[in-house]
Amino acid sequence: MANSPTGESVISRVVRLMSAFDRDLPTMTLSGLARRADLPLTTTRRLLEDLVEHGLIERLGDGSLRPGMRMWELAARGSRALNLQELALPFMDDVLATVHQHTTLAVLDHGSVLYVERLSSPDSRLNAAHIAQRMPVHAASSGLVLLAFSPLAVQEEVLAAPLAKVTPETITDPALIRKHLAEIRQRGYVAIPGIGVTEWTGIAVPVFGSGNEIAAALNAIVPRDEADVPFTVPALLTAAHGISRALKSMSPVPRR
Amino acid sequence: MANSPTGESVISRVVRLMSAFDRDLPTMTLSGLARRADLPLTTTRRLLEDLVEHGLIERLGDGSLRPGMRMWELAARGSRALNLQELALPFMDDVLATVHQHTTLAVLDHGSVLYVERLSSPDSRLNAAHIAQRMPVHAASSGLVLLAFSPLAVQEEVLAAPLAKVTPETITDPALIRKHLAEIRQRGYVAIPGIGVTEWTGIAVPVFGSGNEIAAALNAIVPRDEADVPFTVPALLTAAHGISRALKSMSPVPRR
Repeated sequence: MANSPTGESVISRVVRLMSAFDRDLPTMTLSGLARRADLPLTTTRRLLEDLVEHGLIERLGDGSLRPGMRMWELAARGSRALNLQELALPFMDDVLATVHQHTTLAVLDHGSVLYVERLSSPDSRLNAAHIAQRMPVHAASSGLVLLAFSPLAVQEEVLAAPLAKVTPETITDPALIRKHLAEIRQRGYVAIPGIGVTEWTGIAVPVFGSGNEIAAALNAIVPRDEADVPFTVPALLTAAHGISRALKSMSPVPRR
Repeated sequence: MANSPTGESVISRVVRLMSAFDRDLPTMTLSGLARRADLPLTTTRRLLEDLVEHGLIERLGDGSLRPGMRMWELAARGSRALNLQELALPFMDDVLATVHQHTTLAVLDHGSVLYVERLSSPDSRLNAAHIAQRMPVHAASSGLVLLAFSPLAVQEEVLAAPLAKVTPETITDPALIRKHLAEIRQRGYVAIPGIGVTEWTGIAVPVFGSGNEIAAALNAIVPRDEADVPFTVPALLTAAHGISRALKSMSPVPRR
């Protein structure tokens, strides 16, 4: 249905167009967008007409394009990300007030870590773990925690894929990662420097959902020279417990 | 291109499907989704296959459906909403700490008020102004502020449309609204009880963008019996100025 000459569906091409936008590239020209999405200019122009009409992409005064408010609205209403954000925010604020460091909330989605919320001081130099950005599971403390408490099948799928060295310290040996996962399950947290960004230590704990399944990872990102793990872990565990409690008090029931 | 027998495009049908989800209805069955979106079951099933494959909709263990993390991610990356949220959050936190009341950030989008951020105490009874929800412009203090500082053409377009009585106190007379808008421009804020939700007073101030255009409205929502306008307005004005300053320090340039 509705496929291009190459057999690609409209939905797939729209996903490619929307994926072209990024935190560092929030607006683009028509030709820039077509190039980044690797789509013909005519296809891009035709799809854009429809996307702009529905407010999914906005055309600015100078003709450049950016994701529309309507796109955000459609995605946010009823989304698990927004639900998590809203529930977690007060508890993340508590973490920030206690440890005075970046704190993030992340989920495991389609085989990678997706950051759904982050709090930090405005003048921070950490250029990673931004909201709506992803990291490889094995290269983030949040990823290791999410993986440690995931079903074995999920673990094996992640560990069977190629594991890139994001930094010289990223652990890429599946056997060694399995050993870390076992330790994380036993301790209830992970604190590991440099696996994602060399100068920073990630400290992460699990957040469990209404069925006691792993729902998210709560994390603090600390300059590696200043990492006070014994102080940070109890703060994270307390806040994560609060988020779990909030999640359990509201499990939605699907309506017919 | 890619149109249904009724001439409706794939993008339009996808928007209808995604619009069916809501804060109060975050998950649905296939048949429930088809019914809410007013689409044939076969069309819905076919579109869903593609949407689920791309992670835009997620299928839960019990077969029910909800907006996918990937949808949120696509919308959030590079979006004006997320940018505003991130910039505004610390300042909104300041408002919450000062006035101890709900505070929201809203934009004018496609002729209505869209709430992009909200902070409040977890045990609040206010069931309105949720994140990613909309209100008619004339029935929200934020809407009146956004309209007051919008170009005349935008004002006339909103006032030319039918103006519904959301509560008995909603002002629906265009001439009276114009008078309010002039007052708001002069005073720099609005404080008005009951126009959106009877028991609450909305107090709102403008947030200006990098080109001094109206970018958002910052608002406090206060139980009407406890509204301390002289105390709340300076808090909002101070925080709104901070958000404007943050917006002006980072105006993105489109790349080719």
